Amino acid sequence: MAAYSPPLDDFAFLLHDVLDVTASPVPGYADLDRDTTAAILAEAGRISRDVLAPLNAVGDREGCRLENGVVRTPTGFREAFAILRDGGWPGLDCDPDYGGQGMPYVLHTAAGEMQSAANMSFAMYSGLTHGAYSAIHAHGTPEQKALYLPRLVSCAWTGTMNLTEPHAGTDVGLLRTHAEPQADASLRITGQKIFISAGDHDLAENVVHLVLARTPGAPSGTRGISLFIVPKFLPNPDGSLGARNAVSVGKLEAKMGIHGNATCVMDYDGATGWMLGPENGGLKAMFTMMNEARVQVGVQGLAQAAGACQLAAAYARERRQGRAIPPADPGAPADPIVVHPDVRRLLLDQRSFVEGGRAFALWVATLIDAHARTGDEDALALVSLLTPVLKGFLTDKGFDSCVQAQQVFGGHGYIEETGVSQFVRDARIAMIYEGANGIQALDLVARKLGMDGGKPIMAFFALVRAFLKENDADSGLKSDFLDPLKSASKDLQSAAEFFVQNLKTPDAALAGATDFLHLFGHVCLGLMWARMAKAALARDDAFAKAKLATGRYYMARALPATALHLARIRSGAAPLMALPADAF
Amino acid sequence: MAAYSPPLDDFAFLLHDVLDVTASPVPGYADLDRDTTAAILAEAGRISRDVLAPLNAVGDREGCRLENGVVRTPTGFREAFAILRDGGWPGLDCDPDYGGQGMPYVLHTAAGEMQSAANMSFAMYSGLTHGAYSAIHAHGTPEQKALYLPRLVSCAWTGTMNLTEPHAGTDVGLLRTHAEPQADASLRITGQKIFISAGDHDLAENVVHLVLARTPGAPSGTRGISLFIVPKFLPNPDGSLGARNAVSVGKLEAKMGIHGNATCVMDYDGATGWMLGPENGGLKAMFTMMNEARVQVGVQGLAQAAGACQLAAAYARERRQGRAIPPADPGAPADPIVVHPDVRRLLLDQRSFVEGGRAFALWVATLIDAHARTGDEDALALVSLLTPVLKGFLTDKGFDSCVQAQQVFGGHGYIEETGVSQFVRDARIAMIYEGANGIQALDLVARKLGMDGGKPIMAFFALVRAFLKENDADSGLKSDFLDPLKSASKDLQSAAEFFVQNLKTPDAALAGATDFLHLFGHVCLGLMWARMAKAALARDDAFAKAKLATGRYYMARALPATALHLARIRSGAAPLMALPADAF
Repeated sequence: MAAYSPPLDDFAFLLHDVLDVTASPVPGYADLDRDTTAAILAEAGRISRDVLAPLNAVGDREGCRLENGVVRTPTGFREAFAILRDGGWPGLDCDPDYGGQGMPYVLHTAAGEMQSAANMSFAMYSGLTHGAYSAIHAHGTPEQKALYLPRLVSCAWTGTMNLTEPHAGTDVGLLRTHAEPQADASLRITGQKIFISAGDHDLAENVVHLVLARTPGAPSGTRGISLFIVPKFLPNPDGSLGARNAVSVGKLEAKMGIHGNATCVMDYDGATGWMLGPENGGLKAMFTMMNEARVQVGVQGLAQAAGACQLAAAYARERRQGRAIPPADPGAPADPIVVHPDVRRLLLDQRSFVEGGRAFALWVATLIDAHARTGDEDALALVSLLTPVLKGFLTDKGFDSCVQAQQVFGGHGYIEETGVSQFVRDARIAMIYEGANGIQALDLVARKLGMDGGKPIMAFFALVRAFLKENDADSGLKSDFLDPLKSASKDLQSAAEFFVQNLKTPDAALAGATDFLHLFGHVCLGLMWARMAKAALARDDAFAKAKLATGRYYMARALPATALHLARIRSGAAPLMALPADAF
Repeated sequence: MAAYSPPLDDFAFLLHDVLDVTASPVPGYADLDRDTTAAILAEAGRISRDVLAPLNAVGDREGCRLENGVVRTPTGFREAFAILRDGGWPGLDCDPDYGGQGMPYVLHTAAGEMQSAANMSFAMYSGLTHGAYSAIHAHGTPEQKALYLPRLVSCAWTGTMNLTEPHAGTDVGLLRTHAEPQADASLRITGQKIFISAGDHDLAENVVHLVLARTPGAPSGTRGISLFIVPKFLPNPDGSLGARNAVSVGKLEAKMGIHGNATCVMDYDGATGWMLGPENGGLKAMFTMMNEARVQVGVQGLAQAAGACQLAAAYARERRQGRAIPPADPGAPADPIVVHPDVRRLLLDQRSFVEGGRAFALWVATLIDAHARTGDEDALALVSLLTPVLKGFLTDKGFDSCVQAQQVFGGHGYIEETGVSQFVRDARIAMIYEGANGIQALDLVARKLGMDGGKPIMAFFALVRAFLKENDADSGLKSDFLDPLKSASKDLQSAAEFFVQNLKTPDAALAGATDFLHLFGHVCLGLMWARMAKAALARDDAFAKAKLATGRYYMARALPATALHLARIRSGAAPLMALPADAF
């Protein structure tokens, strides 16, 4: 199997040629000069390549084991986690007051892509910890912050998020886990949570569960849910570990992929917990973690596609079958399969998605930084709008992209030893967790589209229009990039208008929600490709030429999908709702 | 997990209301009255449901084991195979001269779909045997036929096809396995074959390998390949088994799916074989088996989608999360998720594909019967044209459909115990084996499209035109079915014309090949849906109403994809060929 190769040139191009980070007024960005970002990402890439990637197949093959109530991670995970921790990587963008390095989130995102591409199951342990850090940072009391944050930042302790119960997944308002107040301000948590990623393991000395539950007399539905901190070991005020809490692993799930991550049934049997944030405000507090997780999961989708695409490209350059007309290598018995148009189609579908998706993810990360570091509410509104698109589009297309990588391998792709099947199996979960992609689409059309009178989507369209106008005279961009972007953006506007005109039929928007999300995703990647093309045209090297060729492919072959999505949206709700429920 | 439910009503509708089989002049069809087909398919369905389906998860979990050079199949497979054999199912459509039941291929296809939906890994053992039967039936000497056919028809012995070698997959002309002639007219076969499905097992007393190899001095490439019969045990003339042949299982592959089928590395070490068909005519002889296998594999893709769709629909009717507006079941804590438009989108994408694909497969099967039973060369030409479409489209979309079924389950779909993940993993191979789908697309545009001066595709267009004209006055069909079919068919014609206009750039057709295959597949399913709608309009029951609603969904939401495929085809080869090979 080809070794993982960190996309350092691409990160440099995106951060500097495209996003021009040092020119940004966002605090901390001025320090992100080319040398600094290159040094940080090279080291993150080295660890991903040399430490994490070699354990990816190991994790898949061995999986996790539940032994005497404790989860054992696959061979090598403990040592690798120690290396990650020693390098301070989990706290790269965390608050320096709690031991973090205070770097912008955009670097954390780039490093996260590499870790996830190298070993998704492994990267989830620190990824979920980061989410727990953010939730406690935003909603914790000073004491909670002092106790938990330094240990989560360093990954001495790790975090989890506990929402789902057997009968309450998407519909979290149905959850039944309850919390009984105690005299000492703690509560006793009782209930069962399922699908808890990184729910238990041997990588860290403590696991901090953030658990949604109801207090006595709480309103029904989502308005009666509170969030609790429930550690595996009860910490003493000095952070040393006390008694084992009454939370245990009921079962490890056998899954299609991410075998290296422990997906647990967690049983809370009067476990001691402390409320995080206000009573009945638990869902809002959890959404601090959830929104961040959704961006991370979008990056996971992209990362799996990136890793699989590397394998496929390497295989296509080496594997010799058939002939180009005329032969590319007449002296050999056959040409490398990269000469064949249909193999190139598979590779370019993947690559144009990966590079466009990477640009999209980093751009959204700069918006997250802008809000976090300057309080820019417009940036936050755009992030809110784009989060479901990023999560849904990058994971749907990321999975498709892994499937295409597998196809390049032919029969060898179906055999586990080539490694590409694992990318397909691992990538599949990203379309499901942190809100299945149908829920992302619902969030987008039912909440985000009309948010604040539609201001965020108007702001997005204004960005596209401004770019088109600003570069209208650029003949290198015009027909290959600007015209297709304009047409795709018009499709997006027509779709949004269709929803507005059909407000009285809520099903019309819901019926078109997934198509709208994909339409939006294509326009985002189209905008990214147009911006990248502009930056590439300012250079004259092989990297820039390849970038332009890849971008032209995306605009010519992928972006026309917007018209199909619009056609489907306009077909309305009737084709979906005609069949009575019992006829399914 | 929901039990497998054989789609008997759908088969009855297709065979009688749509295809009107008893009205066909094809010998044997007049006997296929409703009672006869219902009785045969009900029994085939019963075995699929009660015997094969319960072993599907068992096969996935246990897989096959290689013990002392012999493959052991999963628990229960031996007993189930004996039941299949005792019922005479493997020989349903085989020649009565060799113990077959002589029924039309269309019934074999319907039974095959059910077997594959119930347990794809299991069904492959008899499926490959059927292919070996066909190859020996078409190309064997009278002695070979007398010795092998009765035993293959009964599945006392099973068959395999041995093409691939480590360095020779798609490019079969690179194969190196060689055959040394002996004084007694046998040959000694030496070489290694990989990815041999059903290569060894404990279900039958002998395994008959059909092996491609080269005789001494044979021309290089595909013109120097011969086909050999190489049995695991050397048969005596009376069919009793003699010595163990020098062929052995080198290894069992660890695969993404179809764990219940033994995918073997086969080592031939001077194994005794006999030539089947003429020297250097091996590829042509193998294509008898291959063409049949491609139709079977298309049906596998459809079958996996059908099985997964049933699970998803059952889950969507039972699982309660969220609310319709207004609530569908106000007394319960939540509505079944089938009320949600986006869940319906997933289910109707699957169902409209499955029912359309099933019609397509059965229609092609009737064409195969027409050729086999009356020598109808026009039918054969149409089968040749449609085989790559059927294989490529039904397996690509079949896999996508399984992924959608998994999505309906949310997190529960990623857990192996619900069974839907297995459908995804099993379905994936069908896009790869018997010619990866890129090869199907290549076959379609480079060989089948221009075959006989384009007569077969002209015949297809004539069929569509005739249907449109014949039903032009039918207002129930017009806007919902005929207009979309007309538009899609026009897109297909435009695509074919684009290729003709760009004959000087062979890469243009190759660059658009996969899109053309999908465009063609959509038009085929569109034609099928229009024909089904016509038949459904002649009835007035719940089945017909559901059929019409499902068909309208396909025409409104799936068929518009033809325009996207045409746009991609028209973008030509340039976007694919711009990047130099070493830039990938």
